[in-house]
Amino acid sequence: MEKIITLSSDFGKQTQGIGNMEGVIYGINPHTRVIHLMHGIPAFDLMAAARTMETVYHMPVGFHVCVVDPDVGTTRKGVIIKVKRGDYLIGPDNGCLMTAPRLLGGIERVVEITNEKFMIRPVSPIFHGRHIFAPAAAHLSRGESMDSFGKELNPAELVSAPYGEAVLAEKKIHAEIIHVHHFGSLHFNILHSVWESAGFEPGKKVRLTWKQGKGVLPVTNTFGEVAQGQPLIMKDDYQRIEAAVNQGSFAQKYGLGVGDKITIEGL
Amino acid sequence: MEKIITLSSDFGKQTQGIGNMEGVIYGINPHTRVIHLMHGIPAFDLMAAARTMETVYHMPVGFHVCVVDPDVGTTRKGVIIKVKRGDYLIGPDNGCLMTAPRLLGGIERVVEITNEKFMIRPVSPIFHGRHIFAPAAAHLSRGESMDSFGKELNPAELVSAPYGEAVLAEKKIHAEIIHVHHFGSLHFNILHSVWESAGFEPGKKVRLTWKQGKGVLPVTNTFGEVAQGQPLIMKDDYQRIEAAVNQGSFAQKYGLGVGDKITIEGL
Amino acid sequence: MEKIITLSSDFGKQTQGIGNMEGVIYGINPHTRVIHLMHGIPAFDLMAAARTMETVYHMPVGFHVCVVDPDVGTTRKGVIIKVKRGDYLIGPDNGCLMTAPRLLGGIERVVEITNEKFMIRPVSPIFHGRHIFAPAAAHLSRGESMDSFGKELNPAELVSAPYGEAVLAEKKIHAEIIHVHHFGSLHFNILHSVWESAGFEPGKKVRLTWKQGKGVLPVTNTFGEVAQGQPLIMKDDYQRIEAAVNQGSFAQKYGLGVGDKITIEGL
Repeated sequence: MEKIITLSSDFGKQTQGIGNMEGVIYGINPHTRVIHLMHGIPAFDLMAAARTMETVYHMPVGFHVCVVDPDVGTTRKGVIIKVKRGDYLIGPDNGCLMTAPRLLGGIERVVEITNEKFMIRPVSPIFHGRHIFAPAAAHLSRGESMDSFGKELNPAELVSAPYGEAVLAEKKIHAEIIHVHHFGSLHFNILHSVWESAGFEPGKKVRLTWKQGKGVLPVTNTFGEVAQGQPLIMKDDYQRIEAAVNQGSFAQKYGLGVGDKITIEGL
Repeated sequence: MEKIITLSSDFGKQTQGIGNMEGVIYGINPHTRVIHLMHGIPAFDLMAAARTMETVYHMPVGFHVCVVDPDVGTTRKGVIIKVKRGDYLIGPDNGCLMTAPRLLGGIERVVEITNEKFMIRPVSPIFHGRHIFAPAAAHLSRGESMDSFGKELNPAELVSAPYGEAVLAEKKIHAEIIHVHHFGSLHFNILHSVWESAGFEPGKKVRLTWKQGKGVLPVTNTFGEVAQGQPLIMKDDYQRIEAAVNQGSFAQKYGLGVGDKITIEGL
Repeated sequence: MEKIITLSSDFGKQTQGIGNMEGVIYGINPHTRVIHLMHGIPAFDLMAAARTMETVYHMPVGFHVCVVDPDVGTTRKGVIIKVKRGDYLIGPDNGCLMTAPRLLGGIERVVEITNEKFMIRPVSPIFHGRHIFAPAAAHLSRGESMDSFGKELNPAELVSAPYGEAVLAEKKIHAEIIHVHHFGSLHFNILHSVWESAGFEPGKKVRLTWKQGKGVLPVTNTFGEVAQGQPLIMKDDYQRIEAAVNQGSFAQKYGLGVGDKITIEGL
């Protein structure tokens, strides 16, 4: 069975960097299956990157590379994070890898990538995806020990995740928008379990309050429970909560975006 | 030889759902080749989805999944359609799968997908692509009988295709725009055979009439037979008729889009 | 080990043509690995196409197809170019394949593709990617001799590359913009070796002069050496020189685009 290597980036389809990374991997280990998890992460958007990496819990156990890397070539570290489920997360130490472990059993070990033996040389100071991270995934997938890549780091030394977890306090959830979907839905840093604790069940209504406005939304199971063009809020498809407009864009309708803070309370 | 599974959707590259579907398939059957047929179908556009699915006749016989699914989570059915060429079409019963059989020998059998044994559970009410359709394709590709998935349906019970076939009457073709191409060409629901019956051969001219306008176009074999910026009409590359501007956008030039009705007559 | 076939085009993700080409290849030779190198080349942009094809030097030796083909269906030839590294470049004779050999040891042999035995018939006059170029790559990857496809051509007969190489004269480099990156960086037709000859080392400054303006930029190794929003110039990640704004768009800031001429001199 081929090993799974997933690639995520903010490259869109506007760069050959994606194909280059796949080529480099294949050159090192042809017995892999490269899956392009997501290359439409908005440029330099660590929050969206972290949110994408959360979804690797839907993938088979494998080697997951994230290249959203605004500080490439500076002193920021490159890291390999092994999680308890058995996956390896590979990328820059800028927080983009730090949310996925919450859904994969937690961090087991971390090493810094410094051994040039496993890099494509000369190492480009501006494209570590091709020269360091994709090769690291390929070498790991061949059975190379993570300790060969560099010294162990204490997980507490790593740059923290770009978002925390929403909390329920005095029957209100204090949340943050962590992603705006292609179709314009907003996704919050609210786990399904926190939503359930708040008792916001389908059939009820909730009030959302943000800096410049507020709105009342029905809690539903899916989009089609409201008329076309109407808003709703529900569990999304990757363990978090989503506000959407049926066949429309919630983000456009309400002028909200990544990083905005929202308070949600029952009615 | 690995089995072919194709995936088509309206996800663009803005969502990890595409990578998630490939991961789920690989987890169920690693002996498959997943081909991303088309993920740039405009959001919720069943007409464009149906047009994309027609092109599977260029693919090897396989398992073809379409996830353009505005009614996900409602009472709309999920279906497997076996066609006479040997392919299986898998997706929502909303018409998006109903044009492809016209080019694949016709429908042989249909079953509804209801057996939860072949779904990723808990089943997301908003992403059947990942939880129902991609897994169904993967299980079918392992040799699972389509009858294991649910009860047989009469094809006549299914939601019909989003477009019919253009007809030739009194020397005029009454057609509909079913797709606007990336480059701005318009594609009509006119089969090559209907075009040939009308006698609209390269070298002749035709008049197009629509609600707000009309135009005369040369019939050509390819783009480069007219000067850059000039319009033309010809057989497209997937059995239908296309109006284009050489190295330009016909859709922009004439303000036409999907669903518009056009009458075409010879000059 | 599977053979590598790479596909590059200006199709974006807005067309099923990409999936169709992969399906056609798989139907001819299932023992291949298709890598989508780049499908976001701007429509009909031969300069960007040529620049993309240069990056195949990062790929394993293989069969590299380029479908940026504004003259499809006219008298323009289809060609197979074998380069000294061992790769085969396949596509239209419009210059898009002519820069890559500079980085792959030079051209070894060229043949015209005329043998219909290796085409999907009837040959579409408007989609040679699917009917001629992808099949040619698949047949070559099975071991078919390039001489089976048609007669040998003299490389000097081919349409020349859409850009030459920037030259250093009187301590100034006379360059051209050959690509605007997704993030808005500009890439010039300046090889790293020419840049080094000019002595434009990191830490120094250079003046850029173009038709409507000029600017002074620091030479750096990477983006993060200047503050966010500030411009810089450096070696890019594929053997050429790049002007960028740290986490911003140089192209937008200065209103420059593909084809613009720039003179660069030291300060």
